[in-house]
Amino acid sequence: MEGSIIRKIIIGVMGGAQFVTNDEEKYAYQIGKIIALEGWVLLNGGRSSGVMEATAKGARENGGITVGVLPTENASSASQYIDIPIITGMGLARNVINILSSDIVIALPGRAGTISEIALALSHGKQVILFRFEVGTWINYYIDKKQVLVANEVEQLRQLLIEEIY
Amino acid sequence: MEGSIIRKIIIGVMGGAQFVTNDEEKYAYQIGKIIALEGWVLLNGGRSSGVMEATAKGARENGGITVGVLPTENASSASQYIDIPIITGMGLARNVINILSSDIVIALPGRAGTISEIALALSHGKQVILFRFEVGTWINYYIDKKQVLVANEVEQLRQLLIEEIY
Amino acid sequence: MEGSIIRKIIIGVMGGAQFVTNDEEKYAYQIGKIIALEGWVLLNGGRSSGVMEATAKGARENGGITVGVLPTENASSASQYIDIPIITGMGLARNVINILSSDIVIALPGRAGTISEIALALSHGKQVILFRFEVGTWINYYIDKKQVLVANEVEQLRQLLIEEIY
Amino acid sequence: MEGSIIRKIIIGVMGGAQFVTNDEEKYAYQIGKIIALEGWVLLNGGRSSGVMEATAKGARENGGITVGVLPTENASSASQYIDIPIITGMGLARNVINILSSDIVIALPGRAGTISEIALALSHGKQVILFRFEVGTWINYYIDKKQVLVANEVEQLRQLLIEEIY
Repeated sequence: MEGSIIRKIIIGVMGGAQFVTNDEEKYAYQIGKIIALEGWVLLNGGRSSGVMEATAKGARENGGITVGVLPTENASSASQYIDIPIITGMGLARNVINILSSDIVIALPGRAGTISEIALALSHGKQVILFRFEVGTWINYYIDKKQVLVANEVEQLRQLLIEEIY
Repeated sequence: MEGSIIRKIIIGVMGGAQFVTNDEEKYAYQIGKIIALEGWVLLNGGRSSGVMEATAKGARENGGITVGVLPTENASSASQYIDIPIITGMGLARNVINILSSDIVIALPGRAGTISEIALALSHGKQVILFRFEVGTWINYYIDKKQVLVANEVEQLRQLLIEEIY
Repeated sequence: MEGSIIRKIIIGVMGGAQFVTNDEEKYAYQIGKIIALEGWVLLNGGRSSGVMEATAKGARENGGITVGVLPTENASSASQYIDIPIITGMGLARNVINILSSDIVIALPGRAGTISEIALALSHGKQVILFRFEVGTWINYYIDKKQVLVANEVEQLRQLLIEEIY
Repeated sequence: MEGSIIRKIIIGVMGGAQFVTNDEEKYAYQIGKIIALEGWVLLNGGRSSGVMEATAKGARENGGITVGVLPTENASSASQYIDIPIITGMGLARNVINILSSDIVIALPGRAGTISEIALALSHGKQVILFRFEVGTWINYYIDKKQVLVANEVEQLRQLLIEEIY
């Protein structure tokens, strides 16, 4: 019986909270959707804006479970598409929890907040997939080690996730 | 449609990791079970011992979702009954996350670790229910304010939870 | 030359932020003073109230160095008697840092916040000295192990500190 | 009298722990030295390697006070040149504390760990000075806002610090 207990796969999706384009929101929604359809749990920063809101909506509207790790001391900042808000009260120190809790980290375009999450993921040895996001030459060291992969289309991303997870 | 999206109720259960009696483990299992049967999410410290293991087993074997907030940097210390491990890498600072993420905190007998969680919950204004646990006269201030309730039987605890949540 | 480099001894002093009596403030000031006169660093929660303010004032006015570990995201909440504010932005998760950074933890009377710090200190195996503070029977387990000592007068506390440190 | 109490200025210096060149170590030592000679406190990640060790040595050997914010649960990983170890037990979540506690953040070359600290500093609105460190085009947004300044020589860095602080 216990052999049938299988921990859920958790996919972290990071990306901008502000200054997100319509295209980026559409991609974020689709990425949330494929995560849900594969039966994986979506984890993000939990707030009701930008990539966070769009991925959670995409996962939630397609039957997925959504976990949001919030920087605040209560859930009032949470997206309505988050099932399970994890309330840290720790500000950006929660970025580390996002990374450590994710089996794989996907990064969509963002500014310093998203860069910090990519960098923390790499410091912790996590697998990162950049989705349509140029982050500068410092990342080449990690691309060469295959710790960072790159995807430009949602189906390509889904294939990379499946290869990495199974 | 969006009106049908309802965030899950999260019940935190704290208690000893070591030196837990057989009776305490049985109670912990039953408390996990009633949480699952009510459709609530169980949240605890995630490890594979004592009250954590027993509540997660009780919830998991009765169809519930279990979230474990781990002190470690990876999931290898997690109970097999945890569906969604939240990995903090923050040691006992994760106790604050346990408290903030729980709509209500139940405390079974434990030592300093459990006392710290009760005290952090009270500092944050959270509702606490002590289950068969005497923690000393300092708690009376909070019992008088009804921030701390007391239960000695599982059915009594279930009634208190229902009154507080709905 | 390097043999002459000696890390500073850090004494943590915890206690109430609110509801502190005049007597408790006087004791707190004197405890800050003896810490400074011994050449030790005072560490506390950094804010400008209660035991924190009084111990920092006592240390600062007697030539000591004061470190305050703040829960906030900036130093505006800091006591004016803090030389070195450590800004965590982590709320009460900073209580763990107070404890881990202190070679010995002194606890004056307080409510849940102070209890959480005592409990976290004991969970981490730190030496605690209770100063005129009854915290309930749960502490007896730790008193029996001599992990908790008790002092009622400042001179007695100074003697205990010297015995523990040297 | 209270007007004479002036909080110390804290300068954070970040940079690589491994793969640090001899030149980078020499620069790091000199940067620690100028911080000490100006009467400022040096804050870094506290460990006994790379830029951390060299800046602490430079500050300590020139009469400065050094604060190291450690990721570990005890001080055994601390550089011998750290006067005041702040022990967080929080792993890389301590990077946030480094940033928030620094009045200004200087970044020397490093990999993902250093990038995460620069990014966290910018997310928190902190002033950053890059010292001989190219971090990619994502930083240009912040250079345009003058939140990021650039220095290539120690004397130039000293001038920038003085302009920013006073």
